Amino acid sequence: MRLPQGFLSSGVTAGFKPSGRPDLALIASRLPAAWAFVGTRNMAAAACVIRARALYASGAPLSAIIVNSGNANAVTGDSGREADQAMAERAAETLGLEPGTVLTASTGVIGRLLPVDRLVVAVPLARMSLGDEVEPALAAIQTTDTREKKAERVLSNGARIVGFAKGSGMIHPDMATMLGFILTDARVDETTLRETFQGLVDRTFNAVTVDGDTSTNDMCVCLANGAAGPVPFQEFRNELYEVMRDLARAVARDGEGADKLITVRVSGAPDDAAARRAARLVAGSNLLKAAVHGNDPNWGRALAALGRSGLTFRPRDVSLNIQGVCVFDGAPQTFDSAQVSAAMGAEEVVFEIGIRGSARGTGEAWGCDLTAEYVSINSDYTT
Amino acid sequence: MRLPQGFLSSGVTAGFKPSGRPDLALIASRLPAAWAFVGTRNMAAAACVIRARALYASGAPLSAIIVNSGNANAVTGDSGREADQAMAERAAETLGLEPGTVLTASTGVIGRLLPVDRLVVAVPLARMSLGDEVEPALAAIQTTDTREKKAERVLSNGARIVGFAKGSGMIHPDMATMLGFILTDARVDETTLRETFQGLVDRTFNAVTVDGDTSTNDMCVCLANGAAGPVPFQEFRNELYEVMRDLARAVARDGEGADKLITVRVSGAPDDAAARRAARLVAGSNLLKAAVHGNDPNWGRALAALGRSGLTFRPRDVSLNIQGVCVFDGAPQTFDSAQVSAAMGAEEVVFEIGIRGSARGTGEAWGCDLTAEYVSINSDYTT
Repeated sequence: MRLPQGFLSSGVTAGFKPSGRPDLALIASRLPAAWAFVGTRNMAAAACVIRARALYASGAPLSAIIVNSGNANAVTGDSGREADQAMAERAAETLGLEPGTVLTASTGVIGRLLPVDRLVVAVPLARMSLGDEVEPALAAIQTTDTREKKAERVLSNGARIVGFAKGSGMIHPDMATMLGFILTDARVDETTLRETFQGLVDRTFNAVTVDGDTSTNDMCVCLANGAAGPVPFQEFRNELYEVMRDLARAVARDGEGADKLITVRVSGAPDDAAARRAARLVAGSNLLKAAVHGNDPNWGRALAALGRSGLTFRPRDVSLNIQGVCVFDGAPQTFDSAQVSAAMGAEEVVFEIGIRGSARGTGEAWGCDLTAEYVSINSDYTT
Repeated sequence: MRLPQGFLSSGVTAGFKPSGRPDLALIASRLPAAWAFVGTRNMAAAACVIRARALYASGAPLSAIIVNSGNANAVTGDSGREADQAMAERAAETLGLEPGTVLTASTGVIGRLLPVDRLVVAVPLARMSLGDEVEPALAAIQTTDTREKKAERVLSNGARIVGFAKGSGMIHPDMATMLGFILTDARVDETTLRETFQGLVDRTFNAVTVDGDTSTNDMCVCLANGAAGPVPFQEFRNELYEVMRDLARAVARDGEGADKLITVRVSGAPDDAAARRAARLVAGSNLLKAAVHGNDPNWGRALAALGRSGLTFRPRDVSLNIQGVCVFDGAPQTFDSAQVSAAMGAEEVVFEIGIRGSARGTGEAWGCDLTAEYVSINSDYTT
């Protein structure tokens, strides 16, 4: 997938991953880019997130992002912050930029200091490798990901929005979870972009059932370098949402060990945020996830999860469809269990929950099924 | 284990469980008993919980409890409430009691109406089977439990507190999770008992990492029939806490598919409740649970979970011990990974988290490791 105009990226092996697979990505913009950023709220936020917050507050445009995988450089104290700053400086120096225009991001094991000496050769190599395709950088930010997560939309003026992400599914705070990078050559007003971005993240990346949605390294960034000229903001916003939604669904679908995407839609909540929270809680229920894995139309698990979601309702006002089949509507419905079970064999299993009443809030969230493979992946990650 | 004076119980097969194993328990007190009750706050609370709340508000003493397993009779609407009332009436009639002195409790699959016709023969049989040992009733309330959960303490005046519980571990709202029954022949003031009980439940049953700790059928009840005379309340309270703590730990230890008990202690939180909440969140982290299963001293997972627990702290103020070994103290510590891994092979794995500062809140919570067996159990529960 080709990057938008004025962007270049690369991915090389620096040696952070024991496997020797690519683990250092460089993203550069020929023009200083307006940007928006959402980072984790975890109290144990990684050095890169702490640095990013400060850069973001400065209001300076961005010219580059350097990302390593295989080491989260989180809870590594002052030494970790120095290592993170050194990574930014190394990239800035190599690209002829000010360090304050270079964002850093890290993902990998928590609690190990980033060995910056591996950057001495790797950063110049990453610079020499810069090209206009997204895949090498995408490969270099992945950890336990099993699929590429990338998405693209073309705008009416020919500008494009290209996004890519890493994150192998649902619950993996110490994989440093999700990184999302969205690049566009559309020219958009930075203030408007920043105001809009958090809301879009809430409706997309934050609607994936990451455990608590606050890992130590979560980060989502949008860069707009303006190379392709202006575009109506409403159009830009809609297409940006689509790119982010595609990426969020892809992250959920690629949950560690997962076979399926779970989509939960809730309507009739007091507001959209409450609907999303409830949808996410249902999609994140271990029991529901296990039932989906076994194609078990055990709808009681969805209702029980809804019942502890914080929403106030009477069961008699609730309806639930699984794969389009109504299984509960104020009371248990008669349905063909074998048919619904067969329909649950699909790649995506959709639960639609409706709450009758005057409230109009709607929301959706995504998760994945829970498998024995998930347990296996996470039982021996560091050892 | 012998019941306290004046209590009788039994367990028989009524036919709610397809397996034909015992699924109907009857508990009776010769003397009307003072009681305390805590039930689920789930919006989809089962008929028995709704009925129990009304009985509890009435202030009438209890003389019996009838409990079925294999069917939660939850979200079954008006028919479910009628079935629940019929169960109480059948027990009352058989025992020569008023229905308003008989508590009902159910556990099992959600969303299926309780087939009350199975009670016609089973309740008289349960009455004929009444004896002074706890085990038959305990067997009849179990579902996927693999171990008996019972505990006993003797008071200074010879009175005893006997508790038994069902609940196969961590996260299973549609197993209707946890039922706890605590019987004592001590004479205690009902008002004081009621005021104390919720706090004890918060420190014990609610400190087990049940997903959201609000299943549709959760219920914990304490009956005091006074047959052995009065005892100082402080002593009673301490021993009651011990019985409930034993049961809570046993429930966590018997988590579905689990091999180990996880204990998390937090100190230095703003208050005890905040410490407990944080401890429970850490103990409930899927990643931590998987790491414990693999004896992986991946301490970053504990810190990452703490970071999203709602507590406010700086990582530099945090210390973490695993099995007594300090692995983090403001910064990563050098430790013998193989040694800690070996120590994690024990039946109980203890994480101790300290936050330096002026706050003094402490709390503990219990969970269990996450295994492939858990996924297997929950993938095909109804089908």
